[in-house]
Amino acid sequence: MINVRIWNENIHDKEERIKAHYPQGIHGALAGIFSDCENVRVTVGLLDDEDQGLSEEALADTDVLIWWGHHAHDKVTDENVSRVIRHIHGGMGFIPLHSAHHSKVFRALCGTSCNLRWRHGDRERLWVCDPHHMIARGLPDHFEIPAEEMYGEPFDIPSPDETVFIGWFSGGEAFRSGVTFHRGGRIFYFQPGHEEYPVYLNENIRKVIRNAVYWAAPCEREHRCIECINAAAPEGEKA
Amino acid sequence: MINVRIWNENIHDKEERIKAHYPQGIHGALAGIFSDCENVRVTVGLLDDEDQGLSEEALADTDVLIWWGHHAHDKVTDENVSRVIRHIHGGMGFIPLHSAHHSKVFRALCGTSCNLRWRHGDRERLWVCDPHHMIARGLPDHFEIPAEEMYGEPFDIPSPDETVFIGWFSGGEAFRSGVTFHRGGRIFYFQPGHEEYPVYLNENIRKVIRNAVYWAAPCEREHRCIECINAAAPEGEKA
Amino acid sequence: MINVRIWNENIHDKEERIKAHYPQGIHGALAGIFSDCENVRVTVGLLDDEDQGLSEEALADTDVLIWWGHHAHDKVTDENVSRVIRHIHGGMGFIPLHSAHHSKVFRALCGTSCNLRWRHGDRERLWVCDPHHMIARGLPDHFEIPAEEMYGEPFDIPSPDETVFIGWFSGGEAFRSGVTFHRGGRIFYFQPGHEEYPVYLNENIRKVIRNAVYWAAPCEREHRCIECINAAAPEGEKA
Amino acid sequence: MINVRIWNENIHDKEERIKAHYPQGIHGALAGIFSDCENVRVTVGLLDDEDQGLSEEALADTDVLIWWGHHAHDKVTDENVSRVIRHIHGGMGFIPLHSAHHSKVFRALCGTSCNLRWRHGDRERLWVCDPHHMIARGLPDHFEIPAEEMYGEPFDIPSPDETVFIGWFSGGEAFRSGVTFHRGGRIFYFQPGHEEYPVYLNENIRKVIRNAVYWAAPCEREHRCIECINAAAPEGEKA
Repeated sequence: MINVRIWNENIHDKEERIKAHYPQGIHGALAGIFSDCENVRVTVGLLDDEDQGLSEEALADTDVLIWWGHHAHDKVTDENVSRVIRHIHGGMGFIPLHSAHHSKVFRALCGTSCNLRWRHGDRERLWVCDPHHMIARGLPDHFEIPAEEMYGEPFDIPSPDETVFIGWFSGGEAFRSGVTFHRGGRIFYFQPGHEEYPVYLNENIRKVIRNAVYWAAPCEREHRCIECINAAAPEGEKA
Repeated sequence: MINVRIWNENIHDKEERIKAHYPQGIHGALAGIFSDCENVRVTVGLLDDEDQGLSEEALADTDVLIWWGHHAHDKVTDENVSRVIRHIHGGMGFIPLHSAHHSKVFRALCGTSCNLRWRHGDRERLWVCDPHHMIARGLPDHFEIPAEEMYGEPFDIPSPDETVFIGWFSGGEAFRSGVTFHRGGRIFYFQPGHEEYPVYLNENIRKVIRNAVYWAAPCEREHRCIECINAAAPEGEKA
Repeated sequence: MINVRIWNENIHDKEERIKAHYPQGIHGALAGIFSDCENVRVTVGLLDDEDQGLSEEALADTDVLIWWGHHAHDKVTDENVSRVIRHIHGGMGFIPLHSAHHSKVFRALCGTSCNLRWRHGDRERLWVCDPHHMIARGLPDHFEIPAEEMYGEPFDIPSPDETVFIGWFSGGEAFRSGVTFHRGGRIFYFQPGHEEYPVYLNENIRKVIRNAVYWAAPCEREHRCIECINAAAPEGEKA
Repeated sequence: MINVRIWNENIHDKEERIKAHYPQGIHGALAGIFSDCENVRVTVGLLDDEDQGLSEEALADTDVLIWWGHHAHDKVTDENVSRVIRHIHGGMGFIPLHSAHHSKVFRALCGTSCNLRWRHGDRERLWVCDPHHMIARGLPDHFEIPAEEMYGEPFDIPSPDETVFIGWFSGGEAFRSGVTFHRGGRIFYFQPGHEEYPVYLNENIRKVIRNAVYWAAPCEREHRCIECINAAAPEGEKA
């Protein structure tokens, strides 16, 4: 059983134009991805929830945390950000989506600004760079997102462990749209998902996020950080 | 002083339509990049030269080898390929251009097929992904190649050390157009340069290749491979 | 079900001193690692088998290939080496053990010499560098191999994707003893296993190899290489 | 001309036992490394200086920042830490030494805890893993530090871009002692340098630090961060 927690700031979701395609919010659309996965259990955390939806209890019981945020990055308290990061360091998977490139958590894990170019109103084609990657399982060699915000290079991130997708935009830009890192837990940043368009209803996008959850799930239930230890020499050795 | 050797199969170069923009061949156009670099000395090796232009003497005196090949990859003898690879393992820089993605040397260094999608007759825009990289020095954030062959993902290479450029093609594809590896020596694969178009006369392209030579130059003159050594324990230790 | 194929040159295995600890050969000891894994099916291929144990049929039915070789690297035919590499490029996992650092297959995948320092008769302690890695699951933070051949740096490999283990040797050397790469399929090189000592009977070593098989298993049954394709522009685009 | 700034918390340096080998402080010993480098200009910043030695003016004029800290990591203000990081993102090189693995700056750049095992009173042997790396120039294949604090794996860092050195400790541990990253500017973490021993007077250690400065120096004088830009489509394109 994989415990997936979907965190959403849930702000745009209250606008009528967003409700038109996401009647249950972005988190509702994302939760639906796993409705037929018998071995996945989904919980939801929202910015307005107690502890901002990021309590110790909730995170300790999470294998993979999906994150959607945009307008309220700064509202997430530093205490909660530190707690999320500690659990990722301990092995929890993390999947920041779209504008979560600027979330405090992702920036802190990258150690860079995560800045990029952007423009509303474009069309994207995602190319699979690594067809053998578990996250690309079952996808065609490329697929389209008819309406999407443009994100373009330079994308200020460390050299990714793996570049799974590159996005082509009709307006003339390209972007490393799906990249992996690890910081204890496994991290997959995935660019698509501007709130104004029903991106998370796209079957290929849903497949990517589902695959990513299986890929990011840790092999141990309990999150354990690497400690700083004043260690005796191993038995039988002397310094 | 950096000794640059430009190797070219020199086949297309004999056609009139290629001579129209490269009257001295592709190697001539590439050599011209360094005409005002006081600390660079250029030599040229061609497939038809003695030892296919890849003699021990020539390579021992080369700091960075630039490689252009397309139709005659298989004509380069395995002995010469092995010699080139040995010098790269020993520290020599290597800059395979365009269709050299399929050269025996580059494929052997990658350990992958280096396959990709391709199509004649497109237009490319190169985006700088890593503006602090020495190879991107002095470039604008993006620049155009009005006519270029399309190379598209998936590009079957190992995860590059660094992705310096991503190419956007008007026909709808994107590509990791400038990527680095090291295998003893430093390697920069750079995608632009289809022979039918005067790509190597483009000022930005020339700047990239010039920068890449400075980046790939080894710090030692002599190429020295890592050996397999049956080694005694360091002094004072006993196993 | 994961199909594991264990390939062994099976030469040392015929000596009495080796039979003393490996009565069924190195391949027999390795096969025993999976005896209680219900979802793993093991087959064995030996150098003396028909097609050197590396037929198209056998490889097409293999998810993960474990490889032990030492004296007979050059006896494996280039045709068979190419076939193995093609299957790895197509997604098959590959686990070269100990002296397989010098196997034709591993060297070709690395694109480097894979040279190193070595010395008989040492004692090793393996340190886990990445305790969250699937390959390190269930291991203590370090463990001992009382008798092992020393392998020391410099190890002439590309920068690994991940360094899972570092080995410490009593004679004074250190080594990147467990490293991952991917070349289509996932690759885990693991240093322990000199034939003169019963290393593959060590419970921690067996755990590493078992974990590595689960880690390296591809998500698709069929091996599919990335092809070179002259591709039309995606529908709706024009170059 | 390369402008090197040596930053030191300058606390241990005031103890008699430290003054015995570092009469001008750790910063003084480090500054001496460059005394015969005509193209290097050294400045020093100390925790007790105005702006903690990290003013905008000082950093804007720095190409490579060397950092030694241990007891006072938390005393460096967040404002100053942010300023240092901004300059590194803009291209400034950064060389954190020894216990600076736990400096706020290095941890923030890594996005991990940078925790490790440690023990006073050991002996280290550094092995060169990448003899072609500019940082390893002119070194023997290994060298000794007769007295050094042990730092051992697991070292909680992201997969380094390059592993230049691995350290072997007489007490039984091993460590990735010299590793590179880039976050805009180039970063080299180097483990040796416990204050109780005259490590920075060791000729090989001094060579490493000198080499690292040349390696980390940016190609542009001015530090420029990647910005977040709401960008119009490139000329001639329409989204």
